[in-house]
Amino acid sequence: MTFRIELKVRDYECDLQGIVNNGVYFNYLEHARHEFLHANNIDFAKLAAEKINLVVVRSELDFKTSLKPGDVFYVEVEPVRLSKLKFGFSQRVIRKSDEKVAVDALVIGTSVNEKGRPFLPTEIDALFPVE
Amino acid sequence: MTFRIELKVRDYECDLQGIVNNGVYFNYLEHARHEFLHANNIDFAKLAAEKINLVVVRSELDFKTSLKPGDVFYVEVEPVRLSKLKFGFSQRVIRKSDEKVAVDALVIGTSVNEKGRPFLPTEIDALFPVE
Amino acid sequence: MTFRIELKVRDYECDLQGIVNNGVYFNYLEHARHEFLHANNIDFAKLAAEKINLVVVRSELDFKTSLKPGDVFYVEVEPVRLSKLKFGFSQRVIRKSDEKVAVDALVIGTSVNEKGRPFLPTEIDALFPVE
Amino acid sequence: MTFRIELKVRDYECDLQGIVNNGVYFNYLEHARHEFLHANNIDFAKLAAEKINLVVVRSELDFKTSLKPGDVFYVEVEPVRLSKLKFGFSQRVIRKSDEKVAVDALVIGTSVNEKGRPFLPTEIDALFPVE
Repeated sequence: MTFRIELKVRDYECDLQGIVNNGVYFNYLEHARHEFLHANNIDFAKLAAEKINLVVVRSELDFKTSLKPGDVFYVEVEPVRLSKLKFGFSQRVIRKSDEKVAVDALVIGTSVNEKGRPFLPTEIDALFPVE
Repeated sequence: MTFRIELKVRDYECDLQGIVNNGVYFNYLEHARHEFLHANNIDFAKLAAEKINLVVVRSELDFKTSLKPGDVFYVEVEPVRLSKLKFGFSQRVIRKSDEKVAVDALVIGTSVNEKGRPFLPTEIDALFPVE
Repeated sequence: MTFRIELKVRDYECDLQGIVNNGVYFNYLEHARHEFLHANNIDFAKLAAEKINLVVVRSELDFKTSLKPGDVFYVEVEPVRLSKLKFGFSQRVIRKSDEKVAVDALVIGTSVNEKGRPFLPTEIDALFPVE
Repeated sequence: MTFRIELKVRDYECDLQGIVNNGVYFNYLEHARHEFLHANNIDFAKLAAEKINLVVVRSELDFKTSLKPGDVFYVEVEPVRLSKLKFGFSQRVIRKSDEKVAVDALVIGTSVNEKGRPFLPTEIDALFPVE
């Protein structure tokens, strides 16, 4: 099942054109990913203490509709396994009022160990099942 | 020739991990594109008054190295013609001290007229030469 | 009765020190004020169309406790009449878990008409009762 | 002599009203303070390693003129000693084109030791001379 959070546009997130600035969607997507990981008991602090760092290596965003002041919206997160050591998050930002997609995104991450080598800890491995 | 601006990391742009937050690169890239357009006499206000809007439809970012507090860096902008009605910006964020690439990006835009139909005004057309 | 909204710290709002950046409280306070005005049917757009602009002229913030990642908090807004043409918002940011005050603030505003002269429209006048 | 840096408004820093968002001045002021401290060899990392933390306890901002897209401006920093254990920064944001003051500010800080008790390290003490 797709994980999702509900948020509301804040006026300071809008720019000169009167719409949410493109860069802000990046923040929305990150916040939803972190909430998704928390909900799945992935503990950044614990992983970091074990010298394992989660990092974003690539992001692809398609902008389809602009959110405006006052809009309520969902941010969805769906885990996608890309390879033995790479995982992704298929994400969508959806306006609540009419279910229109504002942004369609794929964010690719990996995790590295103390020596900077790719390494997938058990809990991450389990969260992104190989199909 | 590639257009570029020089900037310096500001501490408030860094996050919990002590590095520039991924979303901030989006801001850097946007600022560089706007400076590039200004340098080429593309006037948003004038275009908007003529009911022509420039919009970003897709962005692809590859994160390669993390910028840290105090880092000085360049943001490059190179215009790329993608099709009759689509144009792109090939962009790179490069750390000044060692010329290492922090982010490699492709940002795709289009412009629409009053009726929301794709329409490329003369000055945009000239800036993105068809090869 | 004091108006208040409930929010949650987003990781990207935290800085190098692992706490919410001081400047972000400013965003929280603004968002709460705008929600308060909306709740009281003050319509910026309508006022702006009538050439009446609401502006902040001064802000005083006392930082008492730092919010951290994951913290849930309230932002309070209480209208205060300061003079015939000046109004203020007495605001507090309060951590939900222990009701500790993070920030205590006074934000002072005024409204100006088309000619830039101070002018208080009826709805604003009614919202900030003279004691 | 007053320390100052020169910056330029970035479009994404502007909001719905077409001017720099009030909260962004906070970022400008912080960046200038950090540059000022660096210029005076105050090393946050070193102080933090010695368990001494610099914290902002109060900020007062007077908004006088709004900066707009493309504006070049200075941010000034002047150290002010307030008491034996409290120091302040008298700051101004000034538009370059006409030397008009955009924001007038006083930011008050203190430093605390490992036990959370107020403690002023030698280099900070020297930077804020008692008059």
